[in-house]
Amino acid sequence: MPPPDLNPHVFVVFGATGDLARRKLFPGLFHLWQLGLMPEQFRIIGSSRIAPGPQEVFRDMVHHAVEMFRGEIDHEAWQRFAARVSFVVASDDDGAALAKAVRAAETEMGPEAKRLLYMAVPPSATEPMVRMLGKFDLNERAKLVLEKPFGTDLRSAKRLNAALHEVFDEVQIYRIDHFLGKEAVQNILVLRFANGFFEPDWNLQHVCYVQIDVPEEIDIQGRADFMESTGTFRDMVSTHLFQLLGFVALEPPVRLDAESLHDEKAKVFRSIRPLDPDRVVLGQYEGYRDEEGVNESSDVETFVAMEVFVDNWRWFGVPFYLRTGKAMAESRRTITVGFWEPPLKMFPGDVGGRCNELVLELADDPKIFCDLRAKIPGPELQVGRGRMKLDLMEAFPGSEPLEAYERLLLDVMRGDSTLFTSTKEVELLWQLADPLLQNPPRPKSYPRGSWGPREALQLPGEFGWRVPG
Amino acid sequence: MPPPDLNPHVFVVFGATGDLARRKLFPGLFHLWQLGLMPEQFRIIGSSRIAPGPQEVFRDMVHHAVEMFRGEIDHEAWQRFAARVSFVVASDDDGAALAKAVRAAETEMGPEAKRLLYMAVPPSATEPMVRMLGKFDLNERAKLVLEKPFGTDLRSAKRLNAALHEVFDEVQIYRIDHFLGKEAVQNILVLRFANGFFEPDWNLQHVCYVQIDVPEEIDIQGRADFMESTGTFRDMVSTHLFQLLGFVALEPPVRLDAESLHDEKAKVFRSIRPLDPDRVVLGQYEGYRDEEGVNESSDVETFVAMEVFVDNWRWFGVPFYLRTGKAMAESRRTITVGFWEPPLKMFPGDVGGRCNELVLELADDPKIFCDLRAKIPGPELQVGRGRMKLDLMEAFPGSEPLEAYERLLLDVMRGDSTLFTSTKEVELLWQLADPLLQNPPRPKSYPRGSWGPREALQLPGEFGWRVPG
Repeated sequence: MPPPDLNPHVFVVFGATGDLARRKLFPGLFHLWQLGLMPEQFRIIGSSRIAPGPQEVFRDMVHHAVEMFRGEIDHEAWQRFAARVSFVVASDDDGAALAKAVRAAETEMGPEAKRLLYMAVPPSATEPMVRMLGKFDLNERAKLVLEKPFGTDLRSAKRLNAALHEVFDEVQIYRIDHFLGKEAVQNILVLRFANGFFEPDWNLQHVCYVQIDVPEEIDIQGRADFMESTGTFRDMVSTHLFQLLGFVALEPPVRLDAESLHDEKAKVFRSIRPLDPDRVVLGQYEGYRDEEGVNESSDVETFVAMEVFVDNWRWFGVPFYLRTGKAMAESRRTITVGFWEPPLKMFPGDVGGRCNELVLELADDPKIFCDLRAKIPGPELQVGRGRMKLDLMEAFPGSEPLEAYERLLLDVMRGDSTLFTSTKEVELLWQLADPLLQNPPRPKSYPRGSWGPREALQLPGEFGWRVPG
Repeated sequence: MPPPDLNPHVFVVFGATGDLARRKLFPGLFHLWQLGLMPEQFRIIGSSRIAPGPQEVFRDMVHHAVEMFRGEIDHEAWQRFAARVSFVVASDDDGAALAKAVRAAETEMGPEAKRLLYMAVPPSATEPMVRMLGKFDLNERAKLVLEKPFGTDLRSAKRLNAALHEVFDEVQIYRIDHFLGKEAVQNILVLRFANGFFEPDWNLQHVCYVQIDVPEEIDIQGRADFMESTGTFRDMVSTHLFQLLGFVALEPPVRLDAESLHDEKAKVFRSIRPLDPDRVVLGQYEGYRDEEGVNESSDVETFVAMEVFVDNWRWFGVPFYLRTGKAMAESRRTITVGFWEPPLKMFPGDVGGRCNELVLELADDPKIFCDLRAKIPGPELQVGRGRMKLDLMEAFPGSEPLEAYERLLLDVMRGDSTLFTSTKEVELLWQLADPLLQNPPRPKSYPRGSWGPREALQLPGEFGWRVPG
């Protein structure tokens, strides 16, 4: 792979001792470097309020994280990488040492150097840190990467956005949604717009439903604080699931750039019919209230299933079914587009009951399926269901998909915000979610390892849920 | 498989010592019997002008044929089958012994017994034999199966049809085209009309071309007489290839019965634009004239490639490319439907040049492919071509396809002429072919083992031929 033509970069990772930094960011940066996808010159500065110890201790921590998530690494390679890694303490009101360290790194690397400031910190820490960045002029030449949640409702999102915009221009802000870094999400665009095959059917005349289904087998895994304060709707639906819906539903963008895609997604979000609380099922898995750190009368949802309508000319009347939850039967990330059956049943054995389905498996090993009726080989003209399949890793042997965070870090370095979420989108989605979240339906109980509450299973009516297949 | 509810049958195979009878009919009848797809009661009477010897010699010949084409068979099973096999001499003017044998068999089997008269004889023998059948009342309760060619031009076809209709009603006549007995041909109907997915795109707005490609690796294999008198156009195009075109192009039939399908195919054939001799390439493989029995200045074509237009509301302007020939690079039977590319190229690496293609492999092990553009996994949004695949034998494990002749023999027993060719179709196709055949382009030479003459390769222009893939 030819090395991308990238400016020198100083990475500042706020929350450098935290979970995300150690799981994804340091291993991701190391792997990009191994693949030759980092700039020729770069420095990585970890930062938090309190140092983990002397520089060597921080480097050992990073080393450990990289080995844990990317396997054993060559000693000599690590030494070369580690030479660019350092730690600087910074807090809301004191960024002096950090600013000095950043400028020193830039001086070494030359005038083309850019700053990539990654906020791997709790939401409450974002605003004060951003003010600090402005105060110490760290916003100059900088790209700011933010993790969700982007607020918790429209008001808080607007306040956060206003605070961000006091220090950063919109084009400097990269709101990361790691779902959008997955191969299969980008493939939605390619399938739709690089093929002549799907788009003619991609509308209310031919599509009977869309399902966006992200069940998770894991429970909250001790993250009671996070779940209690956020809930699954804010964590998953108003971010990942609505973003996926945006990619499935959008009109062909003017071109494949960030502005065009953000505009088209925003149009979709603006077209979504106000959510009907009777068509939203919240759930809570049995035993959630017994988890350590969970309020024993908690009404926080660990599961959401809902019906959504996009009231525009393309999609009016086509139900979009969204589902996600913890402690479910299986982990999947599946988008299914169902196409109406033919108006007549012409063949013996053609019992109907499921329409043709195009299934996108958004796994790390992405696959595309198309469920078809076909003749069962044999003396009778009997119709059965067969499955046309495309395994992308098999189709393109030797190709190497990047982990979603790696892909998105690379995009930030390239200055490409196509797969990130704009202020406009964030605010439109909170506007949509607010009425529901202010008065949420009571969560129904569901057994661990199930597909959610009974009411959710019934939501898509005769279509049923596509997963399990 | 439950045994079909079939009347007792007397099979009379005219041309019982010939190639077709030994290769396909006797092995096919035996296999159907093994599968439990023959009527409870049946008799097989072989017939020709001259007996091969005593009854035992004929049975040994049938035994040998069955073993040759279906593998070794159990002695006891063969004895039970052979007890129903006999031979009777018959000729144009003497069917007395045959009529007697048929009636004797019917008397044994009861009043429900039907006759299936299979004309595995040269075309010139058909008319006199049919008159004989009428003279000895063998047409009563009978189904008559005819092999192509169904005439050699419109005039001869009309004469033949008139002669047939003097003795048989149209509903008694089964013109066999073994291509139509293949799994994948029936699958064209199922794919189109049991799925909601393809039909919306199945028209001039979305289809850029159709290719029906039946190259054959074998040369004439000593059958110089047949090729010299028939040629590839009459042998393959005005039968198999046009029939396949009919299935691809037809409108949804009123229902899935013989009359509706024959009507719809006839409508397609009536809509075909008169063939443009400048868009027909005939070919003759190098060395054909040196084959034993071939005229040394023969202009008979062993290859045909042509462009055909169906001038109706669905297909106007969409080229159908047909190709078949002997001594070609590969044996294939492929139908390809090409769908227009999107109006804009939006993705890097999306070089275009081939549209999306739906490929039906009409092999004995049928497969369906759909060529798509997809994202190549990796850090860039690079578009490549992947292939969605459905292998019908894998999709329906345990299913057993019948050999085409077996399937069609079973259909004749069931009285189902859906997959057979009507008088109307035959005459329409000759009407279409006659002007070309009366003044055919001179065949171009092509090397053995090639894809045909250069002029044929250029016929589809920028689309190119789909095979080789």
